[in-house]
Amino acid sequence: MTPSADFSLARPQAHAPGMNVVTIIGDGQLARMMQQAGIELGLSARVLAGRPDASAAQVTADVVLGDYTSREHVMAVSEGSDAVTFDHEHVPNDFLDDLIAQGINVQPQPAALIHAQDKLVMRKKLRELGAPVPPFLAIESTEDIAGFFDATSGQVCLKARRGGYDGKGVWFPGSAEEATQLVAELLDEGVPLMAEKKVTLVRELSAMVARTPSGAVESWPVVESVQRDGICVEATAPAPDTAPFLLEQAERLSREIAAELGVTGVLAVELFETVDEVGQPEIIVNELAMRPHNTGHWTQDGCVTSQFEQHLRAVLDRPLGSTAPLAPVTVMANVLGADEDPQMPMTERMDAVWQRFPNAKIHMYGKDWRPRRKIGHVNMTGDDPAAVRAQAREAARFLETARWSDN
Amino acid sequence: MTPSADFSLARPQAHAPGMNVVTIIGDGQLARMMQQAGIELGLSARVLAGRPDASAAQVTADVVLGDYTSREHVMAVSEGSDAVTFDHEHVPNDFLDDLIAQGINVQPQPAALIHAQDKLVMRKKLRELGAPVPPFLAIESTEDIAGFFDATSGQVCLKARRGGYDGKGVWFPGSAEEATQLVAELLDEGVPLMAEKKVTLVRELSAMVARTPSGAVESWPVVESVQRDGICVEATAPAPDTAPFLLEQAERLSREIAAELGVTGVLAVELFETVDEVGQPEIIVNELAMRPHNTGHWTQDGCVTSQFEQHLRAVLDRPLGSTAPLAPVTVMANVLGADEDPQMPMTERMDAVWQRFPNAKIHMYGKDWRPRRKIGHVNMTGDDPAAVRAQAREAARFLETARWSDN
Repeated sequence: MTPSADFSLARPQAHAPGMNVVTIIGDGQLARMMQQAGIELGLSARVLAGRPDASAAQVTADVVLGDYTSREHVMAVSEGSDAVTFDHEHVPNDFLDDLIAQGINVQPQPAALIHAQDKLVMRKKLRELGAPVPPFLAIESTEDIAGFFDATSGQVCLKARRGGYDGKGVWFPGSAEEATQLVAELLDEGVPLMAEKKVTLVRELSAMVARTPSGAVESWPVVESVQRDGICVEATAPAPDTAPFLLEQAERLSREIAAELGVTGVLAVELFETVDEVGQPEIIVNELAMRPHNTGHWTQDGCVTSQFEQHLRAVLDRPLGSTAPLAPVTVMANVLGADEDPQMPMTERMDAVWQRFPNAKIHMYGKDWRPRRKIGHVNMTGDDPAAVRAQAREAARFLETARWSDN
Repeated sequence: MTPSADFSLARPQAHAPGMNVVTIIGDGQLARMMQQAGIELGLSARVLAGRPDASAAQVTADVVLGDYTSREHVMAVSEGSDAVTFDHEHVPNDFLDDLIAQGINVQPQPAALIHAQDKLVMRKKLRELGAPVPPFLAIESTEDIAGFFDATSGQVCLKARRGGYDGKGVWFPGSAEEATQLVAELLDEGVPLMAEKKVTLVRELSAMVARTPSGAVESWPVVESVQRDGICVEATAPAPDTAPFLLEQAERLSREIAAELGVTGVLAVELFETVDEVGQPEIIVNELAMRPHNTGHWTQDGCVTSQFEQHLRAVLDRPLGSTAPLAPVTVMANVLGADEDPQMPMTERMDAVWQRFPNAKIHMYGKDWRPRRKIGHVNMTGDDPAAVRAQAREAARFLETARWSDN
């Protein structure tokens, strides 16, 4: 039997009378930044955390220690909340069905969340909606992958249907034999699979919106994002040098997906920009995320309303805020743990960055170093995309390595 | 004997390894907003709070329950901090001397703080520095006040040297008899007094800077503030229609005061704008505050670096951030408890404001209603001072009264 959730750190007095109580399942940086945004709304989140020193637990008064894979813990932390929301997609949907059956306000709801959890369900739904998706197939046997490999002339991207993130759960087999062997192994391990045709990528874009249960929708400017080894390292808002029709299409698409899937809170539509047969740019949906997203961190310092504030307002079905930008260009650069953590303490690295860039907005997550772990990000604003990007990159690289690339 | 400070809510795990620990003495909205600003710097404040449901305690993981008038409690909460700072000026200076003697980094230090605590000490020091101050006198007898009343032709502002705020501790006697009687009573009660010549006020300005122990100083644009019954209700940044020489003088003055008094952290120099004998505008120093200040709340949404972030960076002797504005005009309007609290719940009032003004940035303090109590503020940005001010006022009035003034 699972032990009960640990309420020894719980603080009911953290919630001001008459204000909302939002329970966040998850203790990472997204929960941390939601709590930060909630403070000015007069509320303090309740967080289900795995450890008392987790990123979000460090900055939250009302912490319940427990495990999101325990039905009992999820139920215990959710009781009495005005809304229950998430900083990841990994809570089993049947727990959420139980919460809803008990009258608890879960946002987003499982019927929407499934599209951020299962890539095959998402692909099928998007195809049904007429959204641009690559050719794809459920892979349930080695015959399936062999046929798909042939049909796409080997342009295969194999994906675990569930649980992948930051480049995990994605494979690019180089030959039919490799593909077949990989699929055999993965199916043996019980990993449900799908395959899609590899896209000739020009770059990645991200279209983000927030939607309330009542159906109000607000979108942010579409951004260009840069991934390295499957991990987001940078986002530039608005996406530079982009055909206006493409921006319009991306924004309209994200609004439609939010509405059609019944998404509540923040939705990130990760997009591939590619070119069609006659050389015109086009977009294809890559992934969906139903929570604040790495490509939306720039909104903290670049927009009237950040994605974290908007998410809280949306899941509470309260009016959404203006998404107007505060500057012509905002760039977000992630700070990832370097292969070796430099000797220089992080506070000294931050100081060096501030000395050089007094307008650098550094966001740290209170996380220990681990190679390639997301431990913070830097937002910078300005007028010229190339210049701001160079500065934000330089700042983030110094926070990672304690070295300037140009010195 | 004083009971020991209550560590039952203390959470040492709230502080990420290698990041700074800042202890804040005080549990009000200033501490709350410092904690909010600290989150993105990777730190979580430690707060000495009087109650577990105090404004700052609601949003802070590491809370020590105790009393800032207890030497033992102040000592206990300060141990092991990288810096100790304040959300008010009322901690006895001899406690702080003790902390410093123990090697604890107290910022600002008592030698500076005394000028924010004792109005007579402040007035004398500013006169010595050549800063513009009104004629003033220590009032230690009824003879003193009678003489001062005569000398100023009855233009007398009588002040308690210590402890006044939000209009408390200030009197404007209408006659020599009233002045004499008032002074007799107050001296009888043991209230140390001073008097200064009443100023013909055109308006109030506020010049704010932050200074580090190493001597780095950054100033924000000078703002115009509006008080009602001694309580700040509004601030407009930058101060509209102000002679450039006056802005320069105000900024230079605030920098000089910070340096000469050895202020660390945020300094607010509250100024009276008046006119000289030939009708030229001039400024006179009214008060000093050595902490984030109500007239600086606009920086949260109107500047690259807010006063709360800057205060934390300054007391830790870390590099200061850019104070560049994000918009041509930012207006802050306070939300004060109305005489009667409206039936409409505060969340509904916020929703109505957001519906009407999607760019309204509402900051609530998690505080119960009480007439004239500061319970929140609204920041709005735009291009035209009069228009932005009208919107911010309207938003704040609705949050107070649940009524639009124009509908």
